[in-house]
Parts: sequence; structure tokens; C-alpha cells
Amino acid sequence: MPTLKFLGIAGSLRLKSSNKGLLRSAQSQLPEGVSLEIAELSDIPFYNADLTDKPASVQRVLAQIGSADTLVLACTEYNYSLAPALKNILDWASREPNNVLLAGKPVAIMSSGGGMGGSRAQYHLRQVCVFLDLHPLNKPEVFANAFAGGFDGDGNLTDANIQKMIADQMQALTKWTLKLKG
Amino acid sequence: MPTLKFLGIAGSLRLKSSNKGLLRSAQSQLPEGVSLEIAELSDIPFYNADLTDKPASVQRVLAQIGSADTLVLACTEYNYSLAPALKNILDWASREPNNVLLAGKPVAIMSSGGGMGGSRAQYHLRQVCVFLDLHPLNKPEVFANAFAGGFDGDGNLTDANIQKMIADQMQALTKWTLKLKG
Amino acid sequence: MPTLKFLGIAGSLRLKSSNKGLLRSAQSQLPEGVSLEIAELSDIPFYNADLTDKPASVQRVLAQIGSADTLVLACTEYNYSLAPALKNILDWASREPNNVLLAGKPVAIMSSGGGMGGSRAQYHLRQVCVFLDLHPLNKPEVFANAFAGGFDGDGNLTDANIQKMIADQMQALTKWTLKLKG
Amino acid sequence: MPTLKFLGIAGSLRLKSSNKGLLRSAQSQLPEGVSLEIAELSDIPFYNADLTDKPASVQRVLAQIGSADTLVLACTEYNYSLAPALKNILDWASREPNNVLLAGKPVAIMSSGGGMGGSRAQYHLRQVCVFLDLHPLNKPEVFANAFAGGFDGDGNLTDANIQKMIADQMQALTKWTLKLKG
Repeated sequence: MPTLKFLGIAGSLRLKSSNKGLLRSAQSQLPEGVSLEIAELSDIPFYNADLTDKPASVQRVLAQIGSADTLVLACTEYNYSLAPALKNILDWASREPNNVLLAGKPVAIMSSGGGMGGSRAQYHLRQVCVFLDLHPLNKPEVFANAFAGGFDGDGNLTDANIQKMIADQMQALTKWTLKLKG
Repeated sequence: MPTLKFLGIAGSLRLKSSNKGLLRSAQSQLPEGVSLEIAELSDIPFYNADLTDKPASVQRVLAQIGSADTLVLACTEYNYSLAPALKNILDWASREPNNVLLAGKPVAIMSSGGGMGGSRAQYHLRQVCVFLDLHPLNKPEVFANAFAGGFDGDGNLTDANIQKMIADQMQALTKWTLKLKG
Repeated sequence: MPTLKFLGIAGSLRLKSSNKGLLRSAQSQLPEGVSLEIAELSDIPFYNADLTDKPASVQRVLAQIGSADTLVLACTEYNYSLAPALKNILDWASREPNNVLLAGKPVAIMSSGGGMGGSRAQYHLRQVCVFLDLHPLNKPEVFANAFAGGFDGDGNLTDANIQKMIADQMQALTKWTLKLKG
Repeated sequence: MPTLKFLGIAGSLRLKSSNKGLLRSAQSQLPEGVSLEIAELSDIPFYNADLTDKPASVQRVLAQIGSADTLVLACTEYNYSLAPALKNILDWASREPNNVLLAGKPVAIMSSGGGMGGSRAQYHLRQVCVFLDLHPLNKPEVFANAFAGGFDGDGNLTDANIQKMIADQMQALTKWTLKLKG
């Protein structure tokens, strides 16, 4: 039985974010042998090439990324593209020598948003993955319409159909991870 | 003779950023009657819907955006998409009632980057402009290859061809602004 | 009162296409003084730079484009991008000297598709508009979910909400056209 | 030693297309055990859901796709997006039951174009691959600037740097194919 470590990262900094709720739903529906930790981005500063020392908060999350087999990205959409906090931690991670933290890692993408469920941001994130040499799962794609209900007041996912899609995605992601590990 | 106020915003926080250099080049080649101020983003925090009071730094830049006729966005590219600092200030600006700071404003986009000159990020920014109801100029597009020279050690643009493209873009942006003002 | 000529072009070649239905809905809800003709693409061959003579069918549609003030593009989505027939006629039109058929023209975009209503293809089309120097309207965007009903068996739009969105878009497009004409 | 069948498809119908030249360069630099056939699209009609019988030309290319392990797509760019002929054959291929011709196949993408070497169209193609469940190689990306020379009058690639990039891409594609086959 495989032991796989997934790391979840959400683009929203809001405490009751529905995108964080998607990650918690994933956490509660993992295949056997798989664990999912959720990164905390609230103390991560903007990447700036003038900073010669990496802040401790950045080091903490980069260590989590480095030790993860796989990333689960909850791709909050603002204004038809990526939430800056998610993009920013990927930018920090990309500066390590030889892209050692990211190169070749499998990825799943999910999002909660308005009428299109964050889809516009997801395709921008997929373009980012090309340069970062990440391997996003094609299917199932997970889009949740947060404006149509489906979450409680704390951002917990309550919609059974989306829960099922996330469970299926975690199954597919486990297979995809094992295939890419060879 | 028109009096127009352009506001320049660069995605990079680095002091010697070549994208800031593009904005300074624009500043030095404006049509008569046009001014261009450059916003400072280094003290802007990440947008977070839990913050109920807008920080003073955010208020400062939003006031600049509000009083500008037109935006000039130096679209730093990181990892095939937008630099978070640029996206973040647009996200802050988008939260005002009725999108009053942005709706209907003309925009020019320029960037300095690797082999493709930041073009991948520019098209993501254009998608953002759809939701923000900004009107980006189509042509001329300005792409500078920072890795092939053309900037001095302080990020000042020294390439005469790109300088000319920026001058042409500022001319076109002035006409575009006047047309949209009616 | 303005007299404006809109030309509608749909990406689907199917007779009972719901995207053609969107154009017919637009045709029936135009502001006073505005007319909308619908182009026929079924006999248009693929663009091929080896063809030195433009086929008569291509000449016919290019003449319609040339005499239109404004384009209304029903942006059929296949496999997350543009239907080839729509892209192809724009490619043909783009080869005229100085881009005379397209440069500066206002455009509205609408689509009918699966769960996301063709939105993925619309943003690809907007990128095409940058090079073609077309000016797409930002809002309202029109997305119809064809799989959720809303069309009769002949592809006629029957959903009142989408009809209203199209009427609003035609109003906005008329204003946008008049603004761009100066 | 593996025996792998690659199928090359170019978006341009022009006889002396530089994108076809890229495919011939790939053909001449394959790893041992790998073959690359090039599809002919000149007789393929537009996909139209009203056509109930698949034309013989379409059947021919779909059979080639079905028997290929891997696709090599020469992604001609017209007006900042895909050439219709390439998109169209993928659309035809996508209509088979259970997406049996495409699902899970590895892909490499290359292009020759203007200053950006066709990159804008490549990212649109990558979005198409998500829905088609194709697995495009991340790196190396191959972009050739056809306007800066590097091709002879028949569209044959003569630039040694690009030839080397294509040879490297074919090596990487072979490894990627073997990994995905498990």
C-alpha cells in the first residue's frame, strides 16, 4: 500500500474561505495511505528578488512543498485570474536551484467561485504549471459555484455532488501520482 | 489641448526592476498635456476579505487610481503569469462600490521579461481587464526581452527600438483615452 | 438616429445550432436603427496561403464584414477552444491589406455551450481580437448553458433570462459602436 | 528496446509550411525504435454534427491517430490562436465513443511563427488538451521564429539550435511516453 503525502494550498487568505473548505473536504475523503496537510499562507510576504534571506514563514511552506509527493491547489479566482497569495507561494517555490521543489510533481486543481466556479483562474494556473514543470491532473475537474449555496457559514462544503467529485479527484490523483512515480 | 493623467503601476517590487524602467521611459516621452505618475506598491498587503479597514497604503494607491484618467500597467511576468503585486492592487481596486475606480478606464500594457518579453502574462492581464471593465489598447504591444540587454544596471531602458515603441504606445494611448472620453 | 449594420457570425455549421439561435434572438431584439445580417459559413474553405484566388464564397462573406459597422460573434466552443469555422473566417478576413476589414471594429461575443456556456472559447476569441485590432465589448457577457434547456429543437432560444441578456448586450453594443465611431 | 509510433500533425495546409518543416526535422532525429508518420489534412472537411457519415479522409486520419502511441503537434499560429485545420482534426477525433482515440495519450507541441514563435497558440492548444485528456510534455518547449530565417524556401528547418531543441524534445517525449505507458 502506498504512503503518499499531499499538500493542500488555497489562494484565499480569508478564514472562512470556501476554497479552504474544498481542501478540508478532500482531507476527509482520502484513499487509504494518503495524507493531506494544508499550508498556511497568511504570513507569507510578496516575493521580491531584492530579499536575499528567505523569511522563516516562506521556509516553512517551502519545506512542506519539498516533502510533499503531490500538490492540491484550491485555485481561488479574483477578477478572472489567480488569487495573488497562491501565485506568490508558487513564485517563491520556483526560485530554488533546479526547480527542485516542484519539478515533475503531480497536481490537482479545484476551485470555488462565482457562476463559472473559478474556471477562468484554473486555466491560468495550468499555464503556470507548464513553466514550473508540474503535472496537473486532467480529470475530473472540480468547480464549485459558491454563490449557489453548497457551503455553510464557516466555508465547509455541504454539497454532496461536489463532495463526490472531490473524492473522485483524490482517487484519480492518487493513481496519477503513482503513475508518475513509476 | 487635453490634460490627461496617466498612472503607471509595475508588477515587480524590486528596486532596479526593468519593468519599472519601462514606466520611467514612458514618463520621459509623453505627448504634451499628459502626465504620468508611478505608484509604489512595496507597502501594499495582500487583499483579504476579512480586513474590514483598508490600510492607509491601499487608500493611497486607490486614490491615485481614482484620479487617473488612464492606467499604464508594466506587467511583470513570473512563471508564465502575472506578478502577484500587480494583480493584488487591481484586486483591491476592484472592491469599491460599482467598480467606480476602474470601470471604463483605458489601459496600456507593457512588459519586460525573458524570451517572450512577458507576453504570456500580458494575455492573462487582458482577461482580467474584461471583468474589471478596463479597455486595454490593442496596439502597439510592447514586449522587451530583458535577458538580451537593453537595460542598464539600474533597470533604465537603453534600447532605442523599445523606447520608440513606448513613445508610440503613449501616443496611441492618448488618442484612445480621448476617444473613450468622447 | 443612428443607422448601424451589425453582422452576426456563428462558429457552428450545424443547421439547428443553438449558437445560431443566439444570433436570431439578437436579430429580433435590436435597438431602433440597427440591423443584423447573419453570415453563412457552410461553403467557406479552410484558409490556405497557397490559394492565390479568393473563392467566391469567401469574397461574399468578406464583403459582408467590410460593410458592417460591428460584428456579433456567436462563439461556439469545441473542446475548450474556438470552433474552427469561426476562427477560419476571421483568418481569411485578416489577410486583407492593412487589415482594412477588421481594424477598429466593435465586437460583441455570445455563446451557448456546456456547463460553462462556452466561456473558455470566448477568452481565446478575445485574445484573437487583440491581433485583429477588434474591440470586444466587456459587458454584458452572454453565456448560455445549452445542456440545461433553454432552446427548442430547432435551436431557437426560449430562455427569457438569456433573451434579456442578449437584448441588453445589443443595447450596450450600439452605445459602444457609437462611442468608437466618435 | 521500445517500439513507439508517433504521429505528426501540422496546423498549416500550405505545402512549404515551416511548421511541416519542424515535423520533418523531428522525423529525422528520432530515438532508436521510434517512428514518426505525418498526417495529411488537406482533404479533411470541417467537423459538422449534421454529417452522419464520417468522410473517408477523416477515417484515414482518425485511424492514424488511433494507432499512434503519441502525437506531435506542429501548432501553426494564426492571429494569436490555433490554425483551424489542426483544431478541426482534433475536434473530429474527439467525437469517438469514450474519447478512445485520444484519452491518455502523450503529446509534444512545437511551432514556428512570428516574433513569439507561435507561443500564444501553443497555450490555447494546451487548454484543449485538458478536455481531450491528452498529456502534453512540459519541456522543452519548441518555438521557432520563422521571420528571422532558419528555414529554406521549401520550409525545411536549417537552424541548428532549433534542430537540437527538437531532437531533445523527441528524447523527452520518448521518456514521457514510456512513463505514461507504465
